[in-house]
Amino acid sequence: MENLSSNKSFGGWHKQYSHVSKSLNCTMRFAIYLPPQASNGQEVPVLYWLSGLTCTDENFMQKAGAHRIAAELGIAIVAPDTSPRGDDVADDEGYDLGKGAGFYVNATQAPWNRHYHMYDYIVNELPALIESTFPVSNKRAISGHSMGGHGALMITLRNPERYLSVSAFSPISNPSNCPWGKKAFTAYLGEDSAAWRHYDTSILMRDAKDKIPGLVDQGLADDFLTEQLKPELLEAAAKANDYPLEVRLHEGYDHSYYFIASFIEDHLRFHGGYLNG
Amino acid sequence: MENLSSNKSFGGWHKQYSHVSKSLNCTMRFAIYLPPQASNGQEVPVLYWLSGLTCTDENFMQKAGAHRIAAELGIAIVAPDTSPRGDDVADDEGYDLGKGAGFYVNATQAPWNRHYHMYDYIVNELPALIESTFPVSNKRAISGHSMGGHGALMITLRNPERYLSVSAFSPISNPSNCPWGKKAFTAYLGEDSAAWRHYDTSILMRDAKDKIPGLVDQGLADDFLTEQLKPELLEAAAKANDYPLEVRLHEGYDHSYYFIASFIEDHLRFHGGYLNG
Repeated sequence: MENLSSNKSFGGWHKQYSHVSKSLNCTMRFAIYLPPQASNGQEVPVLYWLSGLTCTDENFMQKAGAHRIAAELGIAIVAPDTSPRGDDVADDEGYDLGKGAGFYVNATQAPWNRHYHMYDYIVNELPALIESTFPVSNKRAISGHSMGGHGALMITLRNPERYLSVSAFSPISNPSNCPWGKKAFTAYLGEDSAAWRHYDTSILMRDAKDKIPGLVDQGLADDFLTEQLKPELLEAAAKANDYPLEVRLHEGYDHSYYFIASFIEDHLRFHGGYLNG
Repeated sequence: MENLSSNKSFGGWHKQYSHVSKSLNCTMRFAIYLPPQASNGQEVPVLYWLSGLTCTDENFMQKAGAHRIAAELGIAIVAPDTSPRGDDVADDEGYDLGKGAGFYVNATQAPWNRHYHMYDYIVNELPALIESTFPVSNKRAISGHSMGGHGALMITLRNPERYLSVSAFSPISNPSNCPWGKKAFTAYLGEDSAAWRHYDTSILMRDAKDKIPGLVDQGLADDFLTEQLKPELLEAAAKANDYPLEVRLHEGYDHSYYFIASFIEDHLRFHGGYLNG
């Protein structure tokens, strides 16, 4: 593992690393924010942040304004990249498929199945690396935005024993049923939508048995609201299965990081209640 | 004036505009954050933020995390670009001269003197436009980073009647006496350093008569500290003239926006004490 950068931030440290990922069969970069408590020999819990389409590890760390509250609460934040990377990694001309658009699934279809195993990377490989390298505990929470909101919710529903809480901003709630999701799932998983069900939050939520607390924020001026995001389907699924998910709708807010920054404090305090509880 | 974008943020609005600047003889873009109080018919004071080398109006708005406290205190923030822009604007191959590097001076030398009048733009044209367009008062403060820290301090020292308070992160304290400043001042103002004195903070501060409160933060792990920034010269100038400038040095912090984000709340509360006092 190679340390690429270090910046002191709110008394803690923002650091970028590169490492060779076995799951993804390529070199990956991630960022970690270590709060001041981690420098004092304390094992801190970790919030994983999954970003949206076109993002890298940098967007959230630079734009969300999350370090301030993470420093206060003593929570580390890990921001992985959104797809495998490198010259030999398959790609597509669209911003919504290929690099920057891994959708947090394990691809089964060529050419994507050679590298696109973001599900394994996020669920297993990256946490194992983080927990064996940094002064962190195995208390985990997970959150994300848009494609990453889908990832955070879907991963929690399939691995409830691994996370204490989950949240999302503007998640793709029902990828089997929107243009972004249909395009990506067809490419990565094939045309048979039976394979898609294992990666679809609104479907998984209806059958979930082990339930962990969830918080979702959605802006009502989001350009992708009705065609791609469809929070009403997520709410209906949660209600049908009595899932403890709070969905909050916010007048005037869009899909940008200005929306995330406006409400990230609520999410960090929500997760802190479980991570530090 | 054309509205290019609008994002709700912390209950207020971040907006980008383009307009034709007479001072700069080109089309310019700026960003404004209007706090929630401005939507309620209240005239709010304005903090002008001058960015550093290579920046546009976007860096501070996206990365500093300033909206939260601006919303709390009811302060608008205006972030101009760092140079004239456009295909017919003179430029240089270096990142530290030409576009993105206007140094907030009025150039007197060809080819720069056709467009590079950032001093006039920041001191007069932009505030007049802001105050005739938005629900803001004529109470002004000014701050900036690196080249913009030089700009904020230098402009305040030359126009103390126009600002209630000034602050800076990692300012170029004595541009006549560092590589960045010498290169830019030679190009924009000519080889005779007598012309440079009117744009040099550490020189102006020794002769300042009307004094307004100032705050400077500087990271001690800043790669540019000893060669370009030289805060000790600024401190010495302030002390020699009994200027009310507090200079704070911070162990471990670098030149990045992570440093700015870590301390921007202190700056906004410092300015708020004068703008709302």
